[in-house]
Amino acid sequence: MKLARIARTSPDGVIPRLVAVQPEQKRVIDLATAERLRLERQGATQEAARRLATALFPSSMAAAISLGEVFLAAARQAIETAPEEAVISLDDLQWLSALDPPLLRDFTAFEQHVQNMSARHGEPVFKEFYQTPPYFKINPLALIGHEQEVPWPNYTDYMDYELELGFVIGKSGRNLRPQEALSHLFGVTILNDFSARDVQGPEMSSGFGPSKGKDFATAIGPWITTYDELDISHLDMVARVNGEEWSRGSSATMTWKVEELIAYASKGETIWPGELLGSGTVGTGSGAEHGKKFQPGDVIELEVQGIGVLRNRIGQPEPRGWEPEPRKSRISNEEKESA
Amino acid sequence: MKLARIARTSPDGVIPRLVAVQPEQKRVIDLATAERLRLERQGATQEAARRLATALFPSSMAAAISLGEVFLAAARQAIETAPEEAVISLDDLQWLSALDPPLLRDFTAFEQHVQNMSARHGEPVFKEFYQTPPYFKINPLALIGHEQEVPWPNYTDYMDYELELGFVIGKSGRNLRPQEALSHLFGVTILNDFSARDVQGPEMSSGFGPSKGKDFATAIGPWITTYDELDISHLDMVARVNGEEWSRGSSATMTWKVEELIAYASKGETIWPGELLGSGTVGTGSGAEHGKKFQPGDVIELEVQGIGVLRNRIGQPEPRGWEPEPRKSRISNEEKESA
Repeated sequence: MKLARIARTSPDGVIPRLVAVQPEQKRVIDLATAERLRLERQGATQEAARRLATALFPSSMAAAISLGEVFLAAARQAIETAPEEAVISLDDLQWLSALDPPLLRDFTAFEQHVQNMSARHGEPVFKEFYQTPPYFKINPLALIGHEQEVPWPNYTDYMDYELELGFVIGKSGRNLRPQEALSHLFGVTILNDFSARDVQGPEMSSGFGPSKGKDFATAIGPWITTYDELDISHLDMVARVNGEEWSRGSSATMTWKVEELIAYASKGETIWPGELLGSGTVGTGSGAEHGKKFQPGDVIELEVQGIGVLRNRIGQPEPRGWEPEPRKSRISNEEKESA
Repeated sequence: MKLARIARTSPDGVIPRLVAVQPEQKRVIDLATAERLRLERQGATQEAARRLATALFPSSMAAAISLGEVFLAAARQAIETAPEEAVISLDDLQWLSALDPPLLRDFTAFEQHVQNMSARHGEPVFKEFYQTPPYFKINPLALIGHEQEVPWPNYTDYMDYELELGFVIGKSGRNLRPQEALSHLFGVTILNDFSARDVQGPEMSSGFGPSKGKDFATAIGPWITTYDELDISHLDMVARVNGEEWSRGSSATMTWKVEELIAYASKGETIWPGELLGSGTVGTGSGAEHGKKFQPGDVIELEVQGIGVLRNRIGQPEPRGWEPEPRKSRISNEEKESA
């Protein structure tokens, strides 16, 4: 099954709706509409049918996934029985981030990417990479969907992309072992971790990790393909900028495997349905690895086997704004004064 | 106003409830109960009164804060008219994390703490601290409240606390200037950023910042004091372990001011109601700065002027679990083979 979120207008404003995607038929099915109509045909009043349908298929994909097998069974039934009234053409819709995760951990699972990035500065791969799978966390409130424009924050001159897989958690767990971890995987999506390289560098030197360098925008989509439809050990990954191929890789080259990422995330922490784990960038999966940068207006496409194509256009830089005024050390001044 | 969340039992299981705290009277007011009873006295049916009361005062503090001034006005009215039926004694309740933020940025705003931590390794303060206020993000799904036990993850032998302020965002904004930023501040709470120091160190060396070293537990509470009741430029801060004072500081020593933290968070990103910004540790506000560690069963109290005391007991270590198997570099092996 392929599941996404789109924006639809209503008397209550624009609302996110969950849809099942049928790419070959170039259409999506609005799941709450299909389920409401199915319930009405079974004798429910429209009001009661709407109440139950939106409880099964709310605006939040993470909330729907939290229903577990109930959600997938209801989605299958809604798709099978969907009348034309619940169908929307792919040409007529506005995509949203396929997922609204309550937490987004972004791992670094591919050695080749780390090696390529380190080599730019003449450095070896940092030794911690070989001990445990590193991750940082991305702002989950700044996600965009397929075909949405990427904001260009006012503090960067070096915008770049990262070609990644996104692993969607389907079931809670804690202190999982790798051999049981994949039963907690709901599906896979494409993740573009847009990066301000000139800001990310100093942030990583500080020891606190990427923040403003990564938090301004992350694209998720175009949809989630459920785990049963994929061989996650061999997914081809390609990036194209303005139609030209810049990156090519495969999930087969992950140094840290998907089941290890899930198990590691769950060590000493409960993982929750709807959480998202990024794979980190596949080797060659960024402009920086090729000495290239984005220009405003560039179009980036990430394609992953078994999922689809996630396409975004880079926006114009925001106007310059407030900048923090650098501080001087108060402690060393005090020490000087007392000396 | 002082606002918190507590757990109450119901036929639908344990549910979080929003309360107004009156510490001097040793009681809290269940806001949804008080509002339901007020609406019933005005002629609403119980069903209708319950529907409106739980829309105004849902289980989520962040969702309530997203109502803006509507929430505060309704809370004032509910408190003024609350009958005994809506009142619970402080002795009879179970606290939850005062806030369920959709995002938790933890800044490093106090130079003295950074200086003390760097001095342990004979190093100077990292130079990036003086350019922009550093932050990383904490797992917002692993928060605990006042009097809740702190889980001890199975991967650490060095558990520590951090005495911090938590600034709750009340209103959306983007690219704010410091002079307008404080109008986006809802209130202040106490934040204990529990830390596994032996794991945090290598994570910071890797450049990706703290993850497992900080993500397992953060205490928030006991409540949020609204901004109008506080002079945030001078809040005394104290930490006691098993009744003995280990830390003392003040918000007056922040190198980066609250309005600068909010403005910086909003650069190139929209900030949202209910988000939480940690101040970072006040100088002397951790065990590491004194060469001290927690033992299981220790009790840590953080006290902040104008707010209250946040108290937590350290739990027993979780049993050893799966550990990632260290990797060898595949790239260098391939290079050797081809050489």
